[in-house]
Amino acid sequence: MSATLQSWRPRVRPSGTRPAIAVTVGEPAGIGPEISIRAAWAMRNEVNCVLLGDAAFLAMTASYIDPAIRLSALSLQAVRNGGLPHFGPGAISVIDVPLAAHVAPGTLDKENGRAVLATLDAAIEGVAAGWFEAVATAPLQKSTINDAGVPFSGHTEYFAGKTGAAQVVMLLAGQPLQAMPPAGEAAPPAPPPLRVALATTHLPLKDVAGALTVEGLGATLDIIAHDLKTKFGIAAPRILVAGLNPHAGENGYLGREDLDVVAPAIAAAQARGIAATGPYPADTLFQPKYLQHADCVLAMYHDQGLPVLKYATFGRGVNITLGLPLIRTSVDHGTALDLAAQGLGRADCGSMEEAIATARRMADAVQAGLPNSGVRA
Amino acid sequence: MSATLQSWRPRVRPSGTRPAIAVTVGEPAGIGPEISIRAAWAMRNEVNCVLLGDAAFLAMTASYIDPAIRLSALSLQAVRNGGLPHFGPGAISVIDVPLAAHVAPGTLDKENGRAVLATLDAAIEGVAAGWFEAVATAPLQKSTINDAGVPFSGHTEYFAGKTGAAQVVMLLAGQPLQAMPPAGEAAPPAPPPLRVALATTHLPLKDVAGALTVEGLGATLDIIAHDLKTKFGIAAPRILVAGLNPHAGENGYLGREDLDVVAPAIAAAQARGIAATGPYPADTLFQPKYLQHADCVLAMYHDQGLPVLKYATFGRGVNITLGLPLIRTSVDHGTALDLAAQGLGRADCGSMEEAIATARRMADAVQAGLPNSGVRA
Repeated sequence: MSATLQSWRPRVRPSGTRPAIAVTVGEPAGIGPEISIRAAWAMRNEVNCVLLGDAAFLAMTASYIDPAIRLSALSLQAVRNGGLPHFGPGAISVIDVPLAAHVAPGTLDKENGRAVLATLDAAIEGVAAGWFEAVATAPLQKSTINDAGVPFSGHTEYFAGKTGAAQVVMLLAGQPLQAMPPAGEAAPPAPPPLRVALATTHLPLKDVAGALTVEGLGATLDIIAHDLKTKFGIAAPRILVAGLNPHAGENGYLGREDLDVVAPAIAAAQARGIAATGPYPADTLFQPKYLQHADCVLAMYHDQGLPVLKYATFGRGVNITLGLPLIRTSVDHGTALDLAAQGLGRADCGSMEEAIATARRMADAVQAGLPNSGVRA
Repeated sequence: MSATLQSWRPRVRPSGTRPAIAVTVGEPAGIGPEISIRAAWAMRNEVNCVLLGDAAFLAMTASYIDPAIRLSALSLQAVRNGGLPHFGPGAISVIDVPLAAHVAPGTLDKENGRAVLATLDAAIEGVAAGWFEAVATAPLQKSTINDAGVPFSGHTEYFAGKTGAAQVVMLLAGQPLQAMPPAGEAAPPAPPPLRVALATTHLPLKDVAGALTVEGLGATLDIIAHDLKTKFGIAAPRILVAGLNPHAGENGYLGREDLDVVAPAIAAAQARGIAATGPYPADTLFQPKYLQHADCVLAMYHDQGLPVLKYATFGRGVNITLGLPLIRTSVDHGTALDLAAQGLGRADCGSMEEAIATARRMADAVQAGLPNSGVRA
């Protein structure tokens, strides 16, 4: 599997078809199945969302959401044998990945842990086989999979391990809302998409400084530059790098790391032809007047970058894993078991729609880079 | 001096007068004098800005900015003897605090270091004496004062030392721009002012976790609650407290400090009647849907709180020092020596105007709380 994906060569999208995007429906007792169905149905004219999950459970869920929703279910073996059919938009495609136990919404059951993993495996298999152009993942519950006896630390790590990716980078992206100008002033320029990559992710704050190395930051910048080119269609990505310390360390007065680690990593990346600049004070670079000249910000840690991203996008950020030999996007929320327990109709599928729409734009950018593709950037 | 201010009792503003606000013009070789003059002139109908600086130098500077600008200069001794006159808005009031040396814009001169400090002393004296309702400070250059032989670590620490304040809290505040709604959606509610206080300020990131204590956070929450009541007129301030670690530590999985330090400090503050809640994940609480139900956010460190504040307010944040027995606001930029060296007319006085306008609103809130005051909240 990983060998196949390491040499991933995207296929040209057949003319007249919608892009096929795998949607793993996530933890069955959470809101994942509902938001996957709603989003797939809402977007069916633009995207062929192929839900990976238990076909019978999804059909029942869909019938409660809206009896008008149609599903076309296939077995994994049938797709292996005959490829993914190019159905029209009248129904949502489903590849059946059966659950082991009945689902009680809101209540976790470790019996279903392995089935959740099997949807991720099917997504990876389908990208390698050329069935899917991208993967969008609904939230899963790590504990269920661990309780099922499979060591599991998250979607991102699982995709990295299965595809042989040496390092991955978490990128959050979204469209900031346009601000209305103050009275008497001209409107600020329409904001470009905001993309924030993280040099470290889920670490206690006290461990962040020690986790940064020149080599690690260099690899992170390489991945960002590579993926912005190949998966976003940005010819020469401009990356603004935040300093680790307040005021980017004020020339060493507020910590040495910006001089000793961040700046050398940027200089080395520049020498490799990457348009990275910094380190800049985080409270300076996140101002619109600087962001409008950048394609991506590299923040040094979680809470340096994500509060701005989520503020600016009103919570509609999409989580994208860079460094994988495939396109993978994700919602930026959890399973919301409490909401699922209250019944259908309460979950907001906006983030799932954004994750699918982002995957589609990325797939289009990849297509535009292929010889003989009919898709233009 | 400090004894006087510790027992600071604001005076009722005489009816028919504009509030008198001291404006220290900062480093004379920087943009401080220019932006102070421009802002004071632009706002002269609402505020009696009393510039504290070298009267001759300010008069010369004003004549180059706009020959129509009038200054009325007084000596400090004259004001000590007779009080601050209630001039009308036809001229900017100046209290003369003479420089020692000729000013070459853009070039620092340690000979003038002590004169800059003398403007701060005059501001504090004037608040204690009832001449001023508030102080707004233009940027100074720490190095000039240190080079003049006076150990000096910043405006904030200087005000704290001179007024006997045991602890101060840095608050950044501003008005977020209203976001235009996405197509087809209703406009989000108009955002309330965004206020972000910091539990720690200018520390290397690696030292932040170790600097937090239950007692220190408790004192910080006390100061925020006290000052939002007394200087902002908010009867029962609601404070959202950010966690130190990503996801507020995920129940200890990403660091213990949120369980061991932040949560107990919040619980103790609640027991003292303070409406503080948290710790919340920083990337959750900075979303508009949560901020609209809060009067202030307490961030644990500089780059957790200020990037959002500056993004949201387009760089128009005002720096407010809480915990002092006086109202003190400040611009959120530096002396811009390079700009000053290029001549007048290049500096933007927007942040200075915001600092003065914020000081005025705070002074109004104090007045509204006084018996017999004609000012209403």
